[in-house]
Amino acid sequence: MGALSEAEISSLDAWWRAANYLSVGQIYLLDNPLLERDLEPDDIKPRLLGHWGTTPGLNLVYTHLNRLIRERDVNAIFLAGPGHGGPAVVAQAWLEGTYSELYPRISYDKLGMLRLFCQFSFPGGIPSHAAPETPGSIHEGGELGYVLSHAYGAALDNPDLLVAAVVGDGEFETGPLAASWHSNKFLDPVHDGAVLPILHLNGYKIANPTVPARIPREELVSLLNGYGHEVLTVEGSDPHDVHQQLAEAMDTAHDRIREIQRAARDGEEWQWRPWPMILLVTPKGWTGPHEVDGKLVEGTWRSHQVPLSETRNNAAHRRQLQEWLASYVPGELFGDDGVPVESVRSLAPAGVRRMSANPHANGGLLRKPLVLPDFRDHAVEVTEPGASVHEATRVFGQYLVDVVRDNPDTFRIFGPDETASNRLDPVYAVTDKVFQGAIWDVDEHLARSGRVMEILSEHTCQGWCEGYLLTGRHGIFSCYEAFIHLVDSMLNQHAKWLKTTRGIGWRADISSLNYLLTSHVWRQDHNGLSHQDPGFIDHVVNKKAEVVRVYLPPDTNTLLSTMQHCLASTHYVNVVVSGKQPAFDWLTAEEADLHCARGVGIWDWASNDGTESGAEPDVVIAAAGDVPTLEALAAVSLLRTHLPEVKVRFVNVVDLMRLQDDTEHPHGLPHAEFDGIFTADKPVIFAYHGYPWLIHRLTYRRSNHANLHVRGYKEEGTTTTPFDMVMMNDLDRYHLVMDVIDRVPGLGQSAAAVRQLMVDTRRRARQWTRDNGEDLPEVRDWTWTGDVEPGRSPSVDTSADF
Amino acid sequence: MGALSEAEISSLDAWWRAANYLSVGQIYLLDNPLLERDLEPDDIKPRLLGHWGTTPGLNLVYTHLNRLIRERDVNAIFLAGPGHGGPAVVAQAWLEGTYSELYPRISYDKLGMLRLFCQFSFPGGIPSHAAPETPGSIHEGGELGYVLSHAYGAALDNPDLLVAAVVGDGEFETGPLAASWHSNKFLDPVHDGAVLPILHLNGYKIANPTVPARIPREELVSLLNGYGHEVLTVEGSDPHDVHQQLAEAMDTAHDRIREIQRAARDGEEWQWRPWPMILLVTPKGWTGPHEVDGKLVEGTWRSHQVPLSETRNNAAHRRQLQEWLASYVPGELFGDDGVPVESVRSLAPAGVRRMSANPHANGGLLRKPLVLPDFRDHAVEVTEPGASVHEATRVFGQYLVDVVRDNPDTFRIFGPDETASNRLDPVYAVTDKVFQGAIWDVDEHLARSGRVMEILSEHTCQGWCEGYLLTGRHGIFSCYEAFIHLVDSMLNQHAKWLKTTRGIGWRADISSLNYLLTSHVWRQDHNGLSHQDPGFIDHVVNKKAEVVRVYLPPDTNTLLSTMQHCLASTHYVNVVVSGKQPAFDWLTAEEADLHCARGVGIWDWASNDGTESGAEPDVVIAAAGDVPTLEALAAVSLLRTHLPEVKVRFVNVVDLMRLQDDTEHPHGLPHAEFDGIFTADKPVIFAYHGYPWLIHRLTYRRSNHANLHVRGYKEEGTTTTPFDMVMMNDLDRYHLVMDVIDRVPGLGQSAAAVRQLMVDTRRRARQWTRDNGEDLPEVRDWTWTGDVEPGRSPSVDTSADF
Repeated sequence: MGALSEAEISSLDAWWRAANYLSVGQIYLLDNPLLERDLEPDDIKPRLLGHWGTTPGLNLVYTHLNRLIRERDVNAIFLAGPGHGGPAVVAQAWLEGTYSELYPRISYDKLGMLRLFCQFSFPGGIPSHAAPETPGSIHEGGELGYVLSHAYGAALDNPDLLVAAVVGDGEFETGPLAASWHSNKFLDPVHDGAVLPILHLNGYKIANPTVPARIPREELVSLLNGYGHEVLTVEGSDPHDVHQQLAEAMDTAHDRIREIQRAARDGEEWQWRPWPMILLVTPKGWTGPHEVDGKLVEGTWRSHQVPLSETRNNAAHRRQLQEWLASYVPGELFGDDGVPVESVRSLAPAGVRRMSANPHANGGLLRKPLVLPDFRDHAVEVTEPGASVHEATRVFGQYLVDVVRDNPDTFRIFGPDETASNRLDPVYAVTDKVFQGAIWDVDEHLARSGRVMEILSEHTCQGWCEGYLLTGRHGIFSCYEAFIHLVDSMLNQHAKWLKTTRGIGWRADISSLNYLLTSHVWRQDHNGLSHQDPGFIDHVVNKKAEVVRVYLPPDTNTLLSTMQHCLASTHYVNVVVSGKQPAFDWLTAEEADLHCARGVGIWDWASNDGTESGAEPDVVIAAAGDVPTLEALAAVSLLRTHLPEVKVRFVNVVDLMRLQDDTEHPHGLPHAEFDGIFTADKPVIFAYHGYPWLIHRLTYRRSNHANLHVRGYKEEGTTTTPFDMVMMNDLDRYHLVMDVIDRVPGLGQSAAAVRQLMVDTRRRARQWTRDNGEDLPEVRDWTWTGDVEPGRSPSVDTSADF
Repeated sequence: MGALSEAEISSLDAWWRAANYLSVGQIYLLDNPLLERDLEPDDIKPRLLGHWGTTPGLNLVYTHLNRLIRERDVNAIFLAGPGHGGPAVVAQAWLEGTYSELYPRISYDKLGMLRLFCQFSFPGGIPSHAAPETPGSIHEGGELGYVLSHAYGAALDNPDLLVAAVVGDGEFETGPLAASWHSNKFLDPVHDGAVLPILHLNGYKIANPTVPARIPREELVSLLNGYGHEVLTVEGSDPHDVHQQLAEAMDTAHDRIREIQRAARDGEEWQWRPWPMILLVTPKGWTGPHEVDGKLVEGTWRSHQVPLSETRNNAAHRRQLQEWLASYVPGELFGDDGVPVESVRSLAPAGVRRMSANPHANGGLLRKPLVLPDFRDHAVEVTEPGASVHEATRVFGQYLVDVVRDNPDTFRIFGPDETASNRLDPVYAVTDKVFQGAIWDVDEHLARSGRVMEILSEHTCQGWCEGYLLTGRHGIFSCYEAFIHLVDSMLNQHAKWLKTTRGIGWRADISSLNYLLTSHVWRQDHNGLSHQDPGFIDHVVNKKAEVVRVYLPPDTNTLLSTMQHCLASTHYVNVVVSGKQPAFDWLTAEEADLHCARGVGIWDWASNDGTESGAEPDVVIAAAGDVPTLEALAAVSLLRTHLPEVKVRFVNVVDLMRLQDDTEHPHGLPHAEFDGIFTADKPVIFAYHGYPWLIHRLTYRRSNHANLHVRGYKEEGTTTTPFDMVMMNDLDRYHLVMDVIDRVPGLGQSAAAVRQLMVDTRRRARQWTRDNGEDLPEVRDWTWTGDVEPGRSPSVDTSADF
């Protein structure tokens, strides 16, 4: 009396058994793939590496999704939260034929099956987890917690798509997952697709029961209702019964989703409608060995990895493995040639309806380049350096207006409640923040649809963004610089994904992950020390050079140029750090364009070293970052005033990876070019945005490294004035002048006097600040006077013609 | 008809008004603290920096907690999740008198009040947030999400303590907070204290409504019920009414807590009893300006920071500020001398019952050193180097048995479901994992009480551990190396806390935060690339040198010695990385003790450079980390066999900070000592556990830096064999030999042949692995033969007598 006839149950069960058989085979077998003879020790892998516990559950869900897809022509993809159940998703892709299409060596026959088994978790083979190598996957699952945010990211702007997301009950305990349930408050049922969460309560983690499995069931359901879900429970350990329950739950869930979408798309009056989800309660390691060596395994944590661990050397274990494999009755499922029998094969959806072949899970295939305005159309006018002031991110916000307008359904802005604080609010002229909670009259820019997504969870923002990019779209994540560390570990996983996919021919490149980090370390006026940390750059540069890029635009036009470049790029992680406070403009649009293309350059309008004539400076003052550039230029000014005889070359670095050499990073400068800019033997005073040692780490192979002296953030800060902040870290103009005097040889008595003046001025500045709560007037009112070489028009790098 | 009489409401309201007055004064005033005349521009701070929105709510909760404390003699501390409401907690500490006791300059009178106002968020003053400087605080709150895990950590093993934790509704959206609600499943009502969460629904974040404020109220309550809480709702915007409601809710909550504790402590049969919590719904920026410049401010996001932003220059704003301040009727609250009037003063609890003076919030005061066994009693016997094999962390687990036994209520082990996986399970001989969910017969080592706390949330583990340490106890956090990055940002905050408290005289030192990172990058056999990241070390060393220590013990006895040192230490972050797999023992207990004390040393039993006679080697082979030490020693062995004429010095580094110089880090080696070990001019081949450039970053000032060649993890990995992993990253013994040959000058033809042999062996090793799924037998079976100088007994560093 259920949704399914006995024949339907039987065929679903056959597919499930086939997938489980193929999963166990992957974990254990080196030979004898069809169990044509008794298992011998040599049939077994010498090292058994993989995770069985979650696998039968993943296979069950996948199997039932296929039924739904076939019966209702659903466009679906599958995300395995417990991605360590790699054998399941690989088995499904092979059963569906996709695996052999993408990897012809792993053919759709007995030899291919053998190779499928052998390659799993084997040197030279494939990883034990769902991975970039896995057809149909956009989600590694190695690090738990991101399946729902990835799923919602994938569903955005894909109104036709159903994203099935299995949440493991271990993963359920993680913070990022816990927060991401609320993603449904940001899903627009009109323009977005649907996410179907399936919480798989198999009861155990590696060594413990899970929290959701052991709290009162009514509390768990209450919690899930509280997350905004209608809960459809499927529970049991009898396959026949569970098939029936799960098919009904899938049908009901899909009906509910369609009804929510219909109501919204028909324009019915808005109301919050809880989305369906499935709570699937089945034993861990289901259908595997029930007991091993007298201990319960099925249904416990002992089935988490490899239930029978000694199958090569222990005959009893081997016999148990054989019985286990035979319990799936492979003879009914595969022909003698290893090809799945027709009755099994016919259960696979067709073509791109196979979840393993759905192009949404290989988003680069669907990706279209962004329509980008020319940044010059938004550039600020710069008549001369330092003559005007802009908030760089606000101007970039105006650039984003065009991007949003011209890419109405492929571009999103993600951020933790900081889009306006980060000055990107000009975009609200053309779009809103999407929200499915109550909207009140007092609210601004809040709507049921919109391109801006804000939740106070960096994890959720990052997950949404990744899911959106991985399915072929574009986005930007703007965040306070200090708190982007919250997603360090997510960045790791995404960078590894990008790195690995570069080696996989059938994976098409996706859009870069673009971070705009603002509200940075030097301007945390309201918040102080807890909000000061420029170390995300350090974290990112540990990732593979092929995938990471770091930019520190010194002003508004360079920010625009940088962002245009990043938004057009593919398959990188781009980290851009830029202030949001009013700051001087240094470069015209044309100069910014050239400077950003070169990544590093001599600003000869700020230099007096006669670079054009091939002369060498006494000192190089270099800067990377907007605040360091300001202080470094002010130092240049001070030197020009007080020690005009010192020949200074001013260098600005916008692309940090230029500092490495070209064997270390694709953007690296060859040594000759580096020496051409930084000299081979002159002191270099380097004012850097972040932790100073990063500059040493990037340049230690340079011939002039011993002369490099870096100032940056050394973990000193509080709520104080902007200039007090740079003074606390010795990055201020006065200290930079002292550094020059200390390092340029042969300066005379007058230099000593100037040095003392600097010391005194710093003391005065500190006292003034403590007395008045403001910066010294001569600092606040400082402007670049162009007095270095009066009358010269600004130009960039004109002499650097290497 | 409520809990309170009108007189009681009136006095509560007076305290609340006083606190709010002092809060507004801190944000705005430079003078005229008692509003004795109309406000002038010069009375106003030039830069207005702080957060008003959350402040009146924090003040309200604090005020009512004080009533509870007075009436019931409750031992309570206060954690402000929205710690940006610094003005509130500072105001309360001043009102209670604690502030003046700790900071006599900020006296309990008019002058002190003025100084209290002036110092807030002012250069040379105090931060805008709750901070280490704030009496009664163990929680910064600058980075949101950790208040509940900190609160639970504080409550553990303090059966008498009530930890009141205000959760902001913005913070509510973060992942770490969302996960930490389940902490109540790990709180033992018999031996632990209680946490009272107060979710303050003031409706808005910086620029948006909050999710919990805009979902249907019944969904929110369902969610909180699902988290295992009984919800007591207090809602309103009329102070009189809200005082009445909140007092009743506090009484009820406290009754419920006492009843849960009584039932448990009386030994009634266990059942899950939901803990009370308060849902407090009041306007953001309550009692502040209702409208400013025609826009609604009170009750909206516009009150988040400074509601009146132009009070210095805009007379209308200034008038509004004056009205705002006057609305609290300061003349009723403070005498002409600025001292709070007796009727207000008398509302403060007495002595250490004041939450600002409770010693639990200055845990170092309560801390007693751990009773630690001598690690030698647990050391493994080492007859000669490489002759025996142990799992280092398992032996350390046996050491922990003693620690747990001898410190029954001041030591805990925290970890994300990995205590057994990380081989610390010997502790289950003397304790259990604490859990308040259902416990089944099949479960092992699970109980209602226990010293081990496991939840699959690194954030929650870290928060618990921090809360436990900050209140004066001891702990260890054991975690997979890769996923400790999840808490990068939490580590930042804790390290900043430690750094800042070093400068605060009244704060007593707390126990170090000890990380044991295992299941490390080189042995992720089951999981592969997603589980490989040694970059936490890089992250940690960006923090202040005074507070961070990094150890890489090469074997079992060095791990024991290191951990004993770390467990006894105070006020550091100690990061210890150690494998859990069977690995060779190199040092006896005595040698380990000496080696760890020195942090770096020459192993002369592995050297053939004649160090004793003062001779110089041809090459230094150095290693840091257990796997690199193995490969480096194997390389030494190969060289000895194939190129015995090369004089090799073997150096092992256990304390990574020794590599820096002594001006950079307290553990840094002076240059002369460094040169004595690493030579001034010989090639150094350094086999390092993590990202290789960290070694360059630490040593770039060393005179021999140009000759330093580092091998480490370069982000290459998958599920493969241990030796294939080191080969993928060129850290293997064969490659190290090639590195030596490439760098030692003057080696002849035979060296070229050896080099080719190494190349061929690597090729063979790779092929063997791919064919057999195992490592080359000669690698698997390799042992240190002691053939370098046969007959010599092992000794450490005997020659280094500088």
